[in-house]
Amino acid sequence: MSNSIKKIALLTGGGDCSGLNAVIRAVTRTAILQYGYEVIGYKFGYRGLYNNDFVNLDLDSVSGILAKGGTILYSSNKDNLFDYSVEENGKTVKKDVSDTAVENMRKEGVDALVVIGGDGTLTSARDFARKGVKVIGVPKTIDNDLAATDVTFGFNTAIEVATEALDRLHTTAESHHRIILCEVMGRNAGWIALESGIAGAADVILLPEIPYDIDKIVDKIRQEEKSGKLFSIIVVAEGAKSKDGEVVVSKIVEDSPDPIRLGGIANKLAYDLEKIIKDHEVRSTVLGHIQRGGITSTFDRILSTRYGVAAADLINEGKFGNMVRLKGDEISYVSLEEVIGNNKNVDPNGELVQIAKKIGISFGD
Amino acid sequence: MSNSIKKIALLTGGGDCSGLNAVIRAVTRTAILQYGYEVIGYKFGYRGLYNNDFVNLDLDSVSGILAKGGTILYSSNKDNLFDYSVEENGKTVKKDVSDTAVENMRKEGVDALVVIGGDGTLTSARDFARKGVKVIGVPKTIDNDLAATDVTFGFNTAIEVATEALDRLHTTAESHHRIILCEVMGRNAGWIALESGIAGAADVILLPEIPYDIDKIVDKIRQEEKSGKLFSIIVVAEGAKSKDGEVVVSKIVEDSPDPIRLGGIANKLAYDLEKIIKDHEVRSTVLGHIQRGGITSTFDRILSTRYGVAAADLINEGKFGNMVRLKGDEISYVSLEEVIGNNKNVDPNGELVQIAKKIGISFGD
Amino acid sequence: MSNSIKKIALLTGGGDCSGLNAVIRAVTRTAILQYGYEVIGYKFGYRGLYNNDFVNLDLDSVSGILAKGGTILYSSNKDNLFDYSVEENGKTVKKDVSDTAVENMRKEGVDALVVIGGDGTLTSARDFARKGVKVIGVPKTIDNDLAATDVTFGFNTAIEVATEALDRLHTTAESHHRIILCEVMGRNAGWIALESGIAGAADVILLPEIPYDIDKIVDKIRQEEKSGKLFSIIVVAEGAKSKDGEVVVSKIVEDSPDPIRLGGIANKLAYDLEKIIKDHEVRSTVLGHIQRGGITSTFDRILSTRYGVAAADLINEGKFGNMVRLKGDEISYVSLEEVIGNNKNVDPNGELVQIAKKIGISFGD
Amino acid sequence: MSNSIKKIALLTGGGDCSGLNAVIRAVTRTAILQYGYEVIGYKFGYRGLYNNDFVNLDLDSVSGILAKGGTILYSSNKDNLFDYSVEENGKTVKKDVSDTAVENMRKEGVDALVVIGGDGTLTSARDFARKGVKVIGVPKTIDNDLAATDVTFGFNTAIEVATEALDRLHTTAESHHRIILCEVMGRNAGWIALESGIAGAADVILLPEIPYDIDKIVDKIRQEEKSGKLFSIIVVAEGAKSKDGEVVVSKIVEDSPDPIRLGGIANKLAYDLEKIIKDHEVRSTVLGHIQRGGITSTFDRILSTRYGVAAADLINEGKFGNMVRLKGDEISYVSLEEVIGNNKNVDPNGELVQIAKKIGISFGD
Repeated sequence: MSNSIKKIALLTGGGDCSGLNAVIRAVTRTAILQYGYEVIGYKFGYRGLYNNDFVNLDLDSVSGILAKGGTILYSSNKDNLFDYSVEENGKTVKKDVSDTAVENMRKEGVDALVVIGGDGTLTSARDFARKGVKVIGVPKTIDNDLAATDVTFGFNTAIEVATEALDRLHTTAESHHRIILCEVMGRNAGWIALESGIAGAADVILLPEIPYDIDKIVDKIRQEEKSGKLFSIIVVAEGAKSKDGEVVVSKIVEDSPDPIRLGGIANKLAYDLEKIIKDHEVRSTVLGHIQRGGITSTFDRILSTRYGVAAADLINEGKFGNMVRLKGDEISYVSLEEVIGNNKNVDPNGELVQIAKKIGISFGD
Repeated sequence: MSNSIKKIALLTGGGDCSGLNAVIRAVTRTAILQYGYEVIGYKFGYRGLYNNDFVNLDLDSVSGILAKGGTILYSSNKDNLFDYSVEENGKTVKKDVSDTAVENMRKEGVDALVVIGGDGTLTSARDFARKGVKVIGVPKTIDNDLAATDVTFGFNTAIEVATEALDRLHTTAESHHRIILCEVMGRNAGWIALESGIAGAADVILLPEIPYDIDKIVDKIRQEEKSGKLFSIIVVAEGAKSKDGEVVVSKIVEDSPDPIRLGGIANKLAYDLEKIIKDHEVRSTVLGHIQRGGITSTFDRILSTRYGVAAADLINEGKFGNMVRLKGDEISYVSLEEVIGNNKNVDPNGELVQIAKKIGISFGD
Repeated sequence: MSNSIKKIALLTGGGDCSGLNAVIRAVTRTAILQYGYEVIGYKFGYRGLYNNDFVNLDLDSVSGILAKGGTILYSSNKDNLFDYSVEENGKTVKKDVSDTAVENMRKEGVDALVVIGGDGTLTSARDFARKGVKVIGVPKTIDNDLAATDVTFGFNTAIEVATEALDRLHTTAESHHRIILCEVMGRNAGWIALESGIAGAADVILLPEIPYDIDKIVDKIRQEEKSGKLFSIIVVAEGAKSKDGEVVVSKIVEDSPDPIRLGGIANKLAYDLEKIIKDHEVRSTVLGHIQRGGITSTFDRILSTRYGVAAADLINEGKFGNMVRLKGDEISYVSLEEVIGNNKNVDPNGELVQIAKKIGISFGD
Repeated sequence: MSNSIKKIALLTGGGDCSGLNAVIRAVTRTAILQYGYEVIGYKFGYRGLYNNDFVNLDLDSVSGILAKGGTILYSSNKDNLFDYSVEENGKTVKKDVSDTAVENMRKEGVDALVVIGGDGTLTSARDFARKGVKVIGVPKTIDNDLAATDVTFGFNTAIEVATEALDRLHTTAESHHRIILCEVMGRNAGWIALESGIAGAADVILLPEIPYDIDKIVDKIRQEEKSGKLFSIIVVAEGAKSKDGEVVVSKIVEDSPDPIRLGGIANKLAYDLEKIIKDHEVRSTVLGHIQRGGITSTFDRILSTRYGVAAADLINEGKFGNMVRLKGDEISYVSLEEVIGNNKNVDPNGELVQIAKKIGISFGD
């Protein structure tokens, strides 16, 4: 054994996505079978690390989880131990409690920590690395918008769900000659909309990265009509932006007489389009959380397994402070210092957008 | 040949659902192969009958459509030829144009008409039968709420889509210890919510037929918590009703400063529950149109085929003015006069609700 | 409580199929939540009863198993405690060890036994009932060939798997103008072949109940060719029988120089057809065990849940010696004495076969 | 327009796989919408080119085919126009008929040819390029064994089908404590077995590239037993090879008294393993043609679309004699001269095999 590691810990942070369990399984099996480590998992991300709330992970605890969505370690969204809400004298104050976390690991004999999460979770991972903790990061973002890695797990499953939904909407749109809008995830990056739109034979794709003009969407619908296609499918990223800079995010309107959640961009656009296009019904559907969970796709199971094994390997090699990643078809790693804050957006002039345009998809621009 | 039928016509009316094409295929193949009829299909339901807009149907035109959602004959929602909107002297007036329809059939040599549709479409079928047209009805309601028949096609596909969505929501809810609401179709009848809720392991099912009390829903969530299950799945029919009689249907608010579609009951309940249950995040998803289309389930393919063959058989037997139906495991028929307006609602004391309660599902009552 | 039941036991026997876990879950939840029973599960069917090998079942042990194929209690195929193989003085002898089983239950305080299984398993259930054990049977046969009940769970999942396979074979057959045979389960009863054949748009369906003539199959293929369809899909039940009475079951040939498993009827027919039809390639696929497992269909989840709740209800009502069943759309029960040995075969003159013939499917007869 | 192209032709050769139609659609749409070409498609690969048997392709003919398996242009397996079987004086002789093909294109005004196919089909494409035909190749191999490109379409769909089958076999194997072998495609290259084995949680994977020793397989099964896992899943490539060099391919035994197709390697191994491992049942399943067809996966739809657009782009740029390919995440191209005969096998020391070994998968070596 190349270094003095005897026991490692895992945690998952941020929103769930398909493949988290496959990573947990691969890290655990490799750690046990290949390197003889003990493995524990902190529950609810950093919160479990702070509360010393963990489970032992052995071959049996990771059996049968490869294809299962979600995370057996649970997750929480916003727990930053370097700026953590604690109760003091009956008040909630923000404190740096990272020393408690380090002390918890020390007492438990944890030599290294594998952190699986997105931008926020990995920022804390970097900060723990700076404190001297032996940390390995595994990137997680269902939106596939992390610059340091080509593909992240969960993304393929998400576009499979979205594409299947588009297949379903097609037959309905065609039967009634409707315009149907389908809103998919993507606040800041439009990858899910772009790839599911291409795979789901969309006529129009609207992204945060390419501001749209509603008149251009209407032009496209009219042009399809002329060529004999009397229905249209429009895929909209939830963060799609108009030329005027308008973004319509689903939200609660508290001060209305009937305070309920307003629909997002797809609902708004359906309303606006129906006013303009009077000879077709316009409908919208918001996929929401079904893009996150369920059975993990084959692609994501393999990618997650590769990430998980690579994370265990990095521990064995003593290469701490790094994040595993995929570049081209190769697994490699990159310093956590370089990862944070570098997002990857859809390039309006990139290959995928150009391909989509060449086969006739409009981006409303 | 037992009667003088030489040529028949089909039309589909109302909202699309899975299995329509399978019915069209079965009628057409049986008519041609078994009885030697010619077959045509009017497009867009009764509108095509009025406009004499049709296609010829042969073995080739129905090849490859068995599993495809939607209807190759297209459909329209509200065309009643007995009270039809026509332009006269620049004004839109309502007229009975059914004679034009009858005349169109006569000129085209159509001896009998197969009408596939729901309550509205079948009401017109009955009215044509009263006028002496040789009509056979085939029931279509994705909500499964027609009293005259045990099961209608499209329903099984819809609950499969809803159940798969619930499977996906489960892993996400579990990972974050969330309450997730999933809104499914069902304005007046809660069958989709009831059956997908049982199949999708819901904790709570809310139906139009069983008014709910939000405090009872909270009780159920708290009780699950006590037994160690820290998340809940709630299936809500879009027409679910509170004890106070409140129904929250998704709608457009025109006179607001920002006139957009408001969320429906699931969104409303998510908002209300989050105010009460402060220690869990509450999320909602509205499945919408993805319940209608896509690939038809095996069950619906077989049921639709049985209906279609039976419709052609009834024509051959000269039993006009009837609708095909399933009772128990047998295909039979019933007079169109008896069908109209007899809906089938979930019985709060019926077997399925009682079964659901016995395995611990709450109806919020 | 209507009788003195305090503790019940479950066991599953025979080949696995989808829905077993859903039954176990429904019995357990109803027993605990509704009637306050304790529940245990014997492992590996009757063998566990004999060896007193069991697990406690509570709400937690049946959580998450509703959709999972197989049985968490495990199963064995041929253990008949009334004629059981035991080792005595170094020799294996057959003995009636049912008293040991009864004694095991008595010692463990088990008041009633729910037996989930097929013909063999239910025969033993009846024999235990005759000995005075309080037994309830739940029918299980993936082939759907039990006369006493209309539908059994696992069947719908099996035909969904078979139909999806036929969908896949269609595109391949069409691209190469091939004849493709697909062998599905069904030694004695052809229900899976019949229903998946109708749902999967087969051209020919071969069943144990309708002996085929290979020349009639060739006629059908030639006739399709003439109408412009240059490929054919043939669904074959593994027990399909020729007019000569020949049945070709997949088997091991021990005394050959290279003793390996020979292909079954689909392979044999592919070989024979290719000799006759020289202008098309002929291929065969045997679906085998993939028809049994995986994710349980929505239909089967609901049916299994109904069976499971009904079994617990029968215990509560003290109606022992019976088997739950579905007739039409109603759950009821029937004496185990009447169930055994009454199989349900496809009726060559029944509705489904006639429907298939009317839409042009050949049975090779 | 950068060169004098006015009309292009497509053809598909070799065994079908998912994604062919998506390529046809992308080439056609880009050619028409972007470059204003006319497009035709030769039927049955090179045979149609020789017989001048083609269809016109426009936007309507490629509508609705994106997700459909197979090829709307049909395919044939072995037609090499440079060594083609023709009838002369009542005898079949082999001749170079490529001049006829060139002449057919000239007469039809076809300026460039897009050839979609595997090694054999692309070899002819190269030979036509050498004759001066303006050819672009698109690689097709479901086995993913072409060295010149990282990934080919159809492969992802194939491993999704295989992985779903493995998921189904798991529940059955677990319920009965069985050893189940699943044979997947891969005569010469084991990629499908390797990737579906990792994604499907196999215990053992057998490949053509890593000769197996049956004793090592038994060791692995026994070791799993000791750790409490009483069933095993073995994925076998059809061309898996034993240490003795034995390959057992499914074949017809003509001279046996009962000449039928013998089972392949999975059947053989099941037989052999059952002789050694007496305390478990051993079963085998051969997936066969269901790996080829059906609905194309999201991944393959996008990849095929990228290939198709790139092929049309290369024509526009006048870069003939090349094949499109994927390297890393980039579409590029390579000379057809460099492509032929360069296959890509699983590297026993490569990353994926090592990853599989680290998580405990045995290759029987």
